[in-house]
Amino acid sequence: MSLELRNRIFQQLDSMWLIDPHTHIDPHRPAAETLADILGYHYYTELAHSAGMPREEIEEPGVGPKEKTRRLIACLGPVENTVQYSWLVEMAQALLGFDGDRITPDNWEDLYDTSERLMSSPAWEQDVLRRSRLRRVFLTSDFDDPLEGFDTELYIPCLRTDDLVFGLADSAVRGRLEKAAGVSVHDPAALRSALGSLFEHFKSRNARAAAISLPPDFTPTKISEQEAAAALDSILLGGEGGGLRSRQSLSHFVFWTLAEFCAEFRLPFDLMIGVNRGVYEAGVFQGQDLYDSRVSLIQYRELFNAFPQVTFPISVLASVTNQELTSYAWIFPNVVTHGHWWYSNAPAFLEGDLAARLETVPATKQIGYYSDMYKLEFALPKFAMYKRTLAKVLAERFVIDRGWPELRALELGRQVLRGNVDATFGF
Amino acid sequence: MSLELRNRIFQQLDSMWLIDPHTHIDPHRPAAETLADILGYHYYTELAHSAGMPREEIEEPGVGPKEKTRRLIACLGPVENTVQYSWLVEMAQALLGFDGDRITPDNWEDLYDTSERLMSSPAWEQDVLRRSRLRRVFLTSDFDDPLEGFDTELYIPCLRTDDLVFGLADSAVRGRLEKAAGVSVHDPAALRSALGSLFEHFKSRNARAAAISLPPDFTPTKISEQEAAAALDSILLGGEGGGLRSRQSLSHFVFWTLAEFCAEFRLPFDLMIGVNRGVYEAGVFQGQDLYDSRVSLIQYRELFNAFPQVTFPISVLASVTNQELTSYAWIFPNVVTHGHWWYSNAPAFLEGDLAARLETVPATKQIGYYSDMYKLEFALPKFAMYKRTLAKVLAERFVIDRGWPELRALELGRQVLRGNVDATFGF
Amino acid sequence: MSLELRNRIFQQLDSMWLIDPHTHIDPHRPAAETLADILGYHYYTELAHSAGMPREEIEEPGVGPKEKTRRLIACLGPVENTVQYSWLVEMAQALLGFDGDRITPDNWEDLYDTSERLMSSPAWEQDVLRRSRLRRVFLTSDFDDPLEGFDTELYIPCLRTDDLVFGLADSAVRGRLEKAAGVSVHDPAALRSALGSLFEHFKSRNARAAAISLPPDFTPTKISEQEAAAALDSILLGGEGGGLRSRQSLSHFVFWTLAEFCAEFRLPFDLMIGVNRGVYEAGVFQGQDLYDSRVSLIQYRELFNAFPQVTFPISVLASVTNQELTSYAWIFPNVVTHGHWWYSNAPAFLEGDLAARLETVPATKQIGYYSDMYKLEFALPKFAMYKRTLAKVLAERFVIDRGWPELRALELGRQVLRGNVDATFGF
Repeated sequence: MSLELRNRIFQQLDSMWLIDPHTHIDPHRPAAETLADILGYHYYTELAHSAGMPREEIEEPGVGPKEKTRRLIACLGPVENTVQYSWLVEMAQALLGFDGDRITPDNWEDLYDTSERLMSSPAWEQDVLRRSRLRRVFLTSDFDDPLEGFDTELYIPCLRTDDLVFGLADSAVRGRLEKAAGVSVHDPAALRSALGSLFEHFKSRNARAAAISLPPDFTPTKISEQEAAAALDSILLGGEGGGLRSRQSLSHFVFWTLAEFCAEFRLPFDLMIGVNRGVYEAGVFQGQDLYDSRVSLIQYRELFNAFPQVTFPISVLASVTNQELTSYAWIFPNVVTHGHWWYSNAPAFLEGDLAARLETVPATKQIGYYSDMYKLEFALPKFAMYKRTLAKVLAERFVIDRGWPELRALELGRQVLRGNVDATFGF
Repeated sequence: MSLELRNRIFQQLDSMWLIDPHTHIDPHRPAAETLADILGYHYYTELAHSAGMPREEIEEPGVGPKEKTRRLIACLGPVENTVQYSWLVEMAQALLGFDGDRITPDNWEDLYDTSERLMSSPAWEQDVLRRSRLRRVFLTSDFDDPLEGFDTELYIPCLRTDDLVFGLADSAVRGRLEKAAGVSVHDPAALRSALGSLFEHFKSRNARAAAISLPPDFTPTKISEQEAAAALDSILLGGEGGGLRSRQSLSHFVFWTLAEFCAEFRLPFDLMIGVNRGVYEAGVFQGQDLYDSRVSLIQYRELFNAFPQVTFPISVLASVTNQELTSYAWIFPNVVTHGHWWYSNAPAFLEGDLAARLETVPATKQIGYYSDMYKLEFALPKFAMYKRTLAKVLAERFVIDRGWPELRALELGRQVLRGNVDATFGF
Repeated sequence: MSLELRNRIFQQLDSMWLIDPHTHIDPHRPAAETLADILGYHYYTELAHSAGMPREEIEEPGVGPKEKTRRLIACLGPVENTVQYSWLVEMAQALLGFDGDRITPDNWEDLYDTSERLMSSPAWEQDVLRRSRLRRVFLTSDFDDPLEGFDTELYIPCLRTDDLVFGLADSAVRGRLEKAAGVSVHDPAALRSALGSLFEHFKSRNARAAAISLPPDFTPTKISEQEAAAALDSILLGGEGGGLRSRQSLSHFVFWTLAEFCAEFRLPFDLMIGVNRGVYEAGVFQGQDLYDSRVSLIQYRELFNAFPQVTFPISVLASVTNQELTSYAWIFPNVVTHGHWWYSNAPAFLEGDLAARLETVPATKQIGYYSDMYKLEFALPKFAMYKRTLAKVLAERFVIDRGWPELRALELGRQVLRGNVDATFGF
């Protein structure tokens, strides 16, 4: 009974049109051009490398897409068990007409050729959007992105702020900021003004959020204008060697100022909490980051109290932080749970994390899922995984355990899958 | 099969008479007088506030109970998914004859009027106790509570010690202590004597436990009498400004002394570990506390070793601490698992936490559940949630997975639900 | 359907011949001689003690095996719920022909006599190996073990290094090292040479791994030869009083040097991360250790980066570290998940931990299980518990949730249960 129930709920959820509230799509090249763009997703390169494929073989300069695909496929056998691999197969089945359950040295070439043929069609992008039922797709936009040349009603700009918060000691980043804002950032007031002009620009181009990923040891705090000025002076004099203390002060100043602008411009501020960058130094591109799960939302206490008018959609990297996230979202009106990020984006974690949210956080304060994809083709399988898990949790824990009517459970599912995206980001 | 099995086990568990080993009941007003007392439970005010209801609207002075109820009901739609909300509905169904599954602006008024009528009956308190199958109810008694005017065989005093451990720098708290004990607390010996007289008083009034809630950074340690004396001097001179160090030393001295008295008076010492008070400063009454889940029972190593003769029933706030709790209860004879506290009191956490305890901790060392309620009406739905979860775990993990006879599983359930309460607290 | 499926998968897994990659077997006395050797396993003595049996009664000198058995059995009633107890009963059923489901004061004596009779047979050891389907059994060998007098193709030496890393400030340990290596360890070069000779000896005797258990605060780092020399001088002068700092430096030097030899001798280095020794000071033998779950694999960042050529099979003590383990194994080619250790070796933890690994870590990088046993009789019930859990996870999460053919799920199970042991340790 439970399986039929799950399937019925899944089918209903699967028929909905979606907004994907966080991706890394390039709006100028949103879809893959061949299977190589698909296999180039860091999930496959890093898993192939972890299973023994040398980085040099993966990242050899000048290797064409077909050869790159051939090489990677030859090394994916050991990762066929992973849910990450299942996204690849489900994508190939749903979008490329693949009818196997593994892509192997024996069958990859046909699939590659098919991908090349289908993806080169001018209709491919719209095809993928339609078959994935994607209505809108959030971007991760560099702060100096002109945001031009694409439909901002379909590809929604999102101001990514990592470089601003953690990179301003780098003169190249400062240069980009000064150029984008048309302001020299010689003191905190000028810096604030520059940041404000970014918000103006993004807001004028339909941005619906600011976003940042944060290391586990980051604790936002408001520092004085004097401390900020001293820190900025030190950095302008000393560059990246301007001292750890000064860089931290500047990070705090910029972060806090961004939150102030989120309040002023009425933008949610997506916080993605807990990543350490570059932990595995010899890893493949985008396959070097890990984390220290010893992080707590208590570090954000001052921030959440200071900005009651800003909505903070929060993602946590490790499942052990999920209970804190549910509790903080249950207590703080401005804290919203946001998707299932990266290393926690597998059913084994997703299922328990989702159940806890559905049971304890107001239904209006849960944004179910985002794909985090780099190419449009991945929304379909990643959302499908989420929807199956959502259907399972609704069936088992709401309909069966709590005696809910099926329709009521389905309504809850629809709200976290879609309704809250609309409400939170203003559609 | 599994569902029928769960139901059979639940029915058997549900027929048992209970002792509720931790509540916040006021023995002089144990039951609600209207639905407003029910909705005033912080779970509903804080969730309504989290979902958007201004604190001012909830806590406006002079608002009568019916208007308060109307306002809160109007804002509970977004939290109907939560298990906390399910307690409200199940209570209304079981005790007030409510036959819906949501309390809404359309149907609340009848329910309110019914609640007023039923709750004003002189028999209501006994009715609730009987229908909830409550034999005894533990209190959370202020240290200076006279413990008079109620039946201490029904409402069991429990010496709550938070004020003593963390509040003695406050002259008002010292004043209460001096008045209650009839002793001036000018030095450690006098303070010890004052604490001892509290234990005498509580013990004479049938107290069965001392209890305290503790912040995540607290690490009990024995300090010297000299250090205690210096700290007390500093505080008596300087009040709350007596310095963080002195206040910490005094906390340690008082806590350790309380443990010594627990040994002398043969009282279990309930430790509720992990709460940070007042994290959300603008939150509603009792809706401001959260936590840092980075806490370890290793912090209690010195305490557990020093007091082998004291039983420590331990509650942890976050589910990530549950495995440590099971391991420490498995190794230390004086550590007992105690209920599922607050932010971990939802099936998504309860299920796994309970399974781990049932699988690894001696059956005699697990106190299954307490309601933590402020009004008697909540024991029924909260215990029902626990009993359903217990039945599920026993059915799935013991009868099905481990091949236990149903009766054996049921006996284990009875022991953690009731038998161990009797054994631990001496009934 | 799910139960039949689980059973079918279990039956298939259960027919496989195993290699147990981590135990504490004494190759000169691998099997129990009476039931007392079984009940002397720390799981039973510590649980009996935790449930109220005085240590003095358990460890009274001069008590014979039958009386010891009688005493322990009399105190095991309260722990019959535990999975640890279930190993005892399953072992008795499978190997001793016991047909009850509890061993009690009423039936223990027959079982004891049976155990004495069966275990005294010269064929017992081979019987147990055969009925447990054990092909090879890894040892935990003292660094100065001569490794003689047993079949090293059956009992595989493993160089245990705790004493070397944490004990060299103790002159007795240094003495053992100097004797074993035939070298005076007066400076880092000599110490390195001594360590190297241990590897030569172990390697010549078919050792397949080095291993160590580590406290939660240990963070491997490479220190300079000068710092090592200073630390060693200080310790040689001052003994254990040579200063915490010097002892830590020496630990780091030895640990790093061991990793270098693992590279040179191509041996995996098993890291068992997270145990605090002697937390419960008055506990029974081997029943005193606990942990602080606030540990992170980020502490091993420098090590994993420095030794890409060394395979690190990693065990974590607490389930809250399991997600980090899966993520680090997913990213670092040299990190392999290794079994389910000690306090996490119960189905409540095992199930989720295993699911996460199977879903996110390359199939080739997961060593499913080891028994950690002290006597051969425990491999059977402990592996059986693991195989049942593995069958459950494969059935529910792969066949049902992900639509895998049963055979494909079974192949994955075989690989983690056996195939990866062969591959990792070179059989």
